[in-house]
Amino acid sequence: MNMRVLVLGGNGFIGTHLVEALVAGGTYVRVLSRSGYRHVQPLHGVDYRYADFADSVSVAESLVDMDIVVHLISTTVPATANLDPLADIAGNLLPTVRLLQQMRDMGVPRLVFLSSGGTVYGNAKSVPIPEEHERNPLSSYGIVKVAIENYIAMFSSQYGLRSLVLRVSNPYGPFQGHLGIQGVIPTFFQRILADDEVRIWGDGSNVRDYLYISDLVSSLVLSINQDLAGVYNVGSGQGVSLRDVVSLIEAITGISAHVEYLPPRGFDVRKVVLDISKVRQAIDWAPVVSLREGCERYWKWVKG
Amino acid sequence: MNMRVLVLGGNGFIGTHLVEALVAGGTYVRVLSRSGYRHVQPLHGVDYRYADFADSVSVAESLVDMDIVVHLISTTVPATANLDPLADIAGNLLPTVRLLQQMRDMGVPRLVFLSSGGTVYGNAKSVPIPEEHERNPLSSYGIVKVAIENYIAMFSSQYGLRSLVLRVSNPYGPFQGHLGIQGVIPTFFQRILADDEVRIWGDGSNVRDYLYISDLVSSLVLSINQDLAGVYNVGSGQGVSLRDVVSLIEAITGISAHVEYLPPRGFDVRKVVLDISKVRQAIDWAPVVSLREGCERYWKWVKG
Repeated sequence: MNMRVLVLGGNGFIGTHLVEALVAGGTYVRVLSRSGYRHVQPLHGVDYRYADFADSVSVAESLVDMDIVVHLISTTVPATANLDPLADIAGNLLPTVRLLQQMRDMGVPRLVFLSSGGTVYGNAKSVPIPEEHERNPLSSYGIVKVAIENYIAMFSSQYGLRSLVLRVSNPYGPFQGHLGIQGVIPTFFQRILADDEVRIWGDGSNVRDYLYISDLVSSLVLSINQDLAGVYNVGSGQGVSLRDVVSLIEAITGISAHVEYLPPRGFDVRKVVLDISKVRQAIDWAPVVSLREGCERYWKWVKG
Repeated sequence: MNMRVLVLGGNGFIGTHLVEALVAGGTYVRVLSRSGYRHVQPLHGVDYRYADFADSVSVAESLVDMDIVVHLISTTVPATANLDPLADIAGNLLPTVRLLQQMRDMGVPRLVFLSSGGTVYGNAKSVPIPEEHERNPLSSYGIVKVAIENYIAMFSSQYGLRSLVLRVSNPYGPFQGHLGIQGVIPTFFQRILADDEVRIWGDGSNVRDYLYISDLVSSLVLSINQDLAGVYNVGSGQGVSLRDVVSLIEAITGISAHVEYLPPRGFDVRKVVLDISKVRQAIDWAPVVSLREGCERYWKWVKG
């Protein structure tokens, strides 16, 4: 059977890479996206559709004849969601619940949802964080992701939806957008290059788990092809402080950063390192790009 | 200082009892309610306002000069929320987040929110369930309560809101509405009296923690007066099966019930008994009305 995959948000940062990999693997892909192909030329054979996620008629049309939906859409990022939580709920939670209802009513059997390993757990008791750790999100972004996860579980148990929730750590790589408000690594590269101050909220000791985009995409493709279901962390499994990220970028670019330390933000989790043993075992996957190598690849791409 | 309390949903089942108790204690009370006083005549000195919770202007007006908000509104019950989760989100989550923003902007410092001990935990690992048990709600009702709890925690940590979340078990008593879809005890009484079949989803072994309304109200009044903050379970701490409830009502009324057993519903949690040691210690409170006594009081009230 030739699997038919609908990628919601297929022209975004993660979507662009995923669609490319799926097409390369011979999978039929339809893309629903708010905006045109920003990063690459349209790919041959891909069915591109343009509509807002809130446009429920277009979403329903895009579901026709699909076997699986990969939901990558987020209309907010952690730094902005808190400023307008009502828009976060209206833009992400409501249309996702509507999507679940439409999939049920139209008989689309499978869903893959990208959740946020960096925000759903809140401040963890210890790291690395396993999937069964309780979810105490500190930000609207994380609160909405938890609510979506819960609705997916409800539709799975009550209506038989086959669902996969991947709680992804901090992905980075080419095509990453929202510079300055999302994506520490591209933002730091950009500001160091422009000789702008690198802004760090807190003392720089906050730890994150950075995953190179090709590793994320390989986990997605394997999960889709192996019909994985359940809830899984996807990250590098390694923790790196913001200060260490700055040092690494300084070493790669040969430019000294001017770091401006700002007061910590209440919604920033202090330390995130994901326990990835469950997904490693489930799909025989492992991240293969080290942070240094990923940053070098990104730097090469930036330089063109 | 004479405390000024706004009770959202002050004419509902719990609100009616709470407002009466607050007024008796000399507290100034304003009520915001969708509907008129259904159960008792308006109380002298209470400022009754009538508006829908979705009417944000009326909500803002009702907040003027208030010291504390007690939020008892729910536009859904567990059995109906699942049928229309979008309405559940729109009717409860969105206006509550708007309320939090308005309280912040208008400087109303304290909030008490009634959450649901029966749905936020989902199927617990063991009973009695302590507050730190992870929250895995099975129903839209529980999912929305968890999201509201998370937003309250966010507003508390980021904007200094002083908040109290009470996760209440199954309260019962006079004035309880929604007969047939909410409130096992009044529904069973009503159906047994009318010689209708008593419907039980599952085999009747599901366990709940029933709390008589006067015990719930005393926990609320003590919490308000003692400026309690945090998250607390409030229940009887005792688990009783549906079958045992039926037997008890048969014994009290002297009428044999015709029980119809229906297939279990996916959103019904199997066993809920709350660990209430935290609230007992915090406000020196304990439930004093046994299930038998509460049912006898209810029966006396029903008979007139």
